[in-house]
Amino acid sequence: MKILIINSGSSSIKYQLMVMPTNEVICTGMIDRIGLETSNVTFKTSSNSIEEALPIPTHKVGLQKVAELLLDPEKGVIKSTSEITAVGHRVVHGGSYFSNTTVITTEVKEKIKELAELAPLHNPAHLVGINVAEEIFSGAKQVAVFDTAFHQTIPVEAYKYAIPNYLLTENKVRVYGFHGTSHKYVSEKAIDYLEKSSKIITIHLGNGCSMAAIKDGKCIDTTMGFSPANGLIMGTRAGDIDQSVIFYMIKNLGYSADEVNSILLKQSGMLGLTGYSDLRDIESEAEKGNKDCQLALIMNAYRIKKYIGSYSAALNGLDAIVFTAGIGENSSYIRNLVCTDMDFFGIELDQEKNQIRSKEIREINASNSRAKVLVVPTDEEYEIANQVYQLLEN
Amino acid sequence: MKILIINSGSSSIKYQLMVMPTNEVICTGMIDRIGLETSNVTFKTSSNSIEEALPIPTHKVGLQKVAELLLDPEKGVIKSTSEITAVGHRVVHGGSYFSNTTVITTEVKEKIKELAELAPLHNPAHLVGINVAEEIFSGAKQVAVFDTAFHQTIPVEAYKYAIPNYLLTENKVRVYGFHGTSHKYVSEKAIDYLEKSSKIITIHLGNGCSMAAIKDGKCIDTTMGFSPANGLIMGTRAGDIDQSVIFYMIKNLGYSADEVNSILLKQSGMLGLTGYSDLRDIESEAEKGNKDCQLALIMNAYRIKKYIGSYSAALNGLDAIVFTAGIGENSSYIRNLVCTDMDFFGIELDQEKNQIRSKEIREINASNSRAKVLVVPTDEEYEIANQVYQLLEN
Repeated sequence: MKILIINSGSSSIKYQLMVMPTNEVICTGMIDRIGLETSNVTFKTSSNSIEEALPIPTHKVGLQKVAELLLDPEKGVIKSTSEITAVGHRVVHGGSYFSNTTVITTEVKEKIKELAELAPLHNPAHLVGINVAEEIFSGAKQVAVFDTAFHQTIPVEAYKYAIPNYLLTENKVRVYGFHGTSHKYVSEKAIDYLEKSSKIITIHLGNGCSMAAIKDGKCIDTTMGFSPANGLIMGTRAGDIDQSVIFYMIKNLGYSADEVNSILLKQSGMLGLTGYSDLRDIESEAEKGNKDCQLALIMNAYRIKKYIGSYSAALNGLDAIVFTAGIGENSSYIRNLVCTDMDFFGIELDQEKNQIRSKEIREINASNSRAKVLVVPTDEEYEIANQVYQLLEN
Repeated sequence: MKILIINSGSSSIKYQLMVMPTNEVICTGMIDRIGLETSNVTFKTSSNSIEEALPIPTHKVGLQKVAELLLDPEKGVIKSTSEITAVGHRVVHGGSYFSNTTVITTEVKEKIKELAELAPLHNPAHLVGINVAEEIFSGAKQVAVFDTAFHQTIPVEAYKYAIPNYLLTENKVRVYGFHGTSHKYVSEKAIDYLEKSSKIITIHLGNGCSMAAIKDGKCIDTTMGFSPANGLIMGTRAGDIDQSVIFYMIKNLGYSADEVNSILLKQSGMLGLTGYSDLRDIESEAEKGNKDCQLALIMNAYRIKKYIGSYSAALNGLDAIVFTAGIGENSSYIRNLVCTDMDFFGIELDQEKNQIRSKEIREINASNSRAKVLVVPTDEEYEIANQVYQLLEN
């Protein structure tokens, strides 16, 4: 079964064509800068790699370009769009409606549209992608895989905020959590590896960063809340902050609410602390003695350590922590900072194993560590394809 | 040495006269509803208890009334204001300027005034109290004891937010922490009791609630941050919340920033969740089967449990947790919820000891508990008097 995975962002489309259940990746690619003067279009197969710069004014034109590349008589990978059994759409916000992967119907689209209020940057772009994909791949099932779905098992004491009840019941203000596809994927891999379900904390450190507490395979708490702004320190996002800072900035420093929101989302985090948003730059500057960079890395790790403690309390135990995503998989520096002075939690790193770079799941704790420390490369595209496949097969 | 302790709030004055170093309390009392039609004035000694209702239009009139009661020929406790060696003023916000108790000078008053920007409800009232006390008790040393001072040992990775650096350097936006006098007092009592310094988490649960991580007697982290809004769930304050909720309420629900701030400070917390702000009511409703009350108590305890975990990570260990203040000292219900399923942290409660009501320091953990669970009655007035005494003696 050929499944096309589409991740439509506000100005980009990422795509991947897979064969399931064999997990074969036929092609991958992306289009960015949609609507700007020129877009970059990429298309990679085992034998070809195409990169083009051309204007892509809309998502519709973008997806048509993807279809064209897939169908290209020379370098393409399919002869007809009818070969594609299903299109799996990543959807950031499923609200409280969707705790599972879902075949897209008119009602589902209505809900995704309604939830645009909660995810204004993402859900409208997903909807455009879905509508265009329905036209172009009209013979395929359209399926939505929600970033929030895995977190729908979080119990009420963890998802509810201590604010007046009507804000939950009428206005849907609660913890939703994001990166669910990644947390689900890596926690399942970890459970397979550990050969038991148990008490796991997953640490997704990419451009966005989040952690999840997972008990017997089910998420019971996560660091991102109502939006992807909260929790860990990220590339440009502040994560947790005393809310009174916002009111102080509005009232005493003369910022508008929109300006404060923009500062906290786009000019904060590692960028605000160091002037750099890419962790590789920050690590290399820190090694050269840049004090801001050194401190930012310590702050970043300290926040993660505190959440490891916090979630160990939620789980009343800890069998394993799992690092994943760009930074989690590649930064031995951050992993080392996080695991230092954590022996109370049974966490002891093996310094040599921590240096290993690999695409495989690996254990980097010392042999006497009570808790396992795993690095599990995430694969959200595979997880989406697999969920679509499981849904359609069952 | 007779020391008068004054705690001036926005519309109230609490006072206590003590003899140091013998810790004898000569009298206590308070004036509330200053500026309203009638105020309640109380004055208690070992032999008398006076309660009056009369108009107290200003703090100045209030403190004059206090002096009058102290000097009363029949029921009073001093013959002349010159008997009072020092007046100890509780001051909520000492910013980054004050990490110790300080004799009040013109410069100190300037700083307290400057910090009113960070504590608009408290510091101006304290200043009024100081100015009036200088007039009335003109022979006494005026001393400021800061709520933030004990937290000035928090290291930069814990006090800095992940926001652009200028907000710290130019605008002083950082974690300050509050209830410092209480955290200092009960942690010192706990250290005496344990006969070692070590790794302690203090849990101050009153009308406001906060926790502190204390390593070898020094505070290294605390739940209240830039203001007393953050951290634990309180009587009417939300504590931690995803900041995007604020922007959502402003942008999508039509509230002003001031309205949102007011909702989060005055209509949230236990009140927002249950309709009640007094924990005794909430516990009794919960016992009668009120689901909102049951959930609010679980949420409250869950937040505390997560911070116990978080601070155990900051400390890399846990020797004792210490409950204090109105709720912490009296609610066996909350203490039990907090200590349930926490054996990973070595916390095991003795159910019978937990039920004991007493004004004494007591240990309520099971004998096999690796971490001690202590109840330490706080005494901020004593702590203020003692700090004033230590400062003037040394």
